[in-house]
Amino acid sequence: MDTKAVAKAFTSLCAKGEMDAAGQKFWSDDVVSLEAMPGDMARIEGRKGVLGKGEWWYANNQVHESKVEGPYVHGNQFLVRFTMDVTPKGGARTKMDELGLYTVSNGRIVEERFFYAGE
Amino acid sequence: MDTKAVAKAFTSLCAKGEMDAAGQKFWSDDVVSLEAMPGDMARIEGRKGVLGKGEWWYANNQVHESKVEGPYVHGNQFLVRFTMDVTPKGGARTKMDELGLYTVSNGRIVEERFFYAGE
Repeated sequence: MDTKAVAKAFTSLCAKGEMDAAGQKFWSDDVVSLEAMPGDMARIEGRKGVLGKGEWWYANNQVHESKVEGPYVHGNQFLVRFTMDVTPKGGARTKMDELGLYTVSNGRIVEERFFYAGE
Repeated sequence: MDTKAVAKAFTSLCAKGEMDAAGQKFWSDDVVSLEAMPGDMARIEGRKGVLGKGEWWYANNQVHESKVEGPYVHGNQFLVRFTMDVTPKGGARTKMDELGLYTVSNGRIVEERFFYAGE
């Protein structure tokens, strides 16, 4: 599959709420997941670790509503926008506005890098 | 200025419709502008060329309405979303949905890479 086909199939699964299935289908074994924050979540390597990150997130956040836009494609990369209405465990309900930048190689996602709107 | 400060100032000018001023202020002399299409516009190098690209675009497209969202920051990169209602010269009125990925070095934009939604 080329990047455009991966982008469409991945985004389509995300839009159905099947984020884990999307990852399971397209992450490479040595996928790297990058967050713009200090700490343990800043860089996670490997399919198992990235899957665990997703499980942790869903166990610690209640999603009331979510919207998926994209994909936006350029070369071997694509972007997906996630806007979510969530309540983190023990926290206040909030709106998240996030973009994932995915890099594809040989039909697999080898890197995901997340960008947040802020201030 | 760090990436976050550049991102905020650049996006704020874009939101006022001052795209050229934003570029003039933040492009490095050797900025590279990348489009996901074949042809002359695929890769333009240098401040003068990139400015010319913008001038060409505005001369050939009538913008009825535009919306700017962002910035979304990660490390030395940031994203800005542009949604526009435009009529290209001699063409049909259409909606554009585009994301610019900007890479910052020493307080200047050294690369801009555009991603489009759609088939």
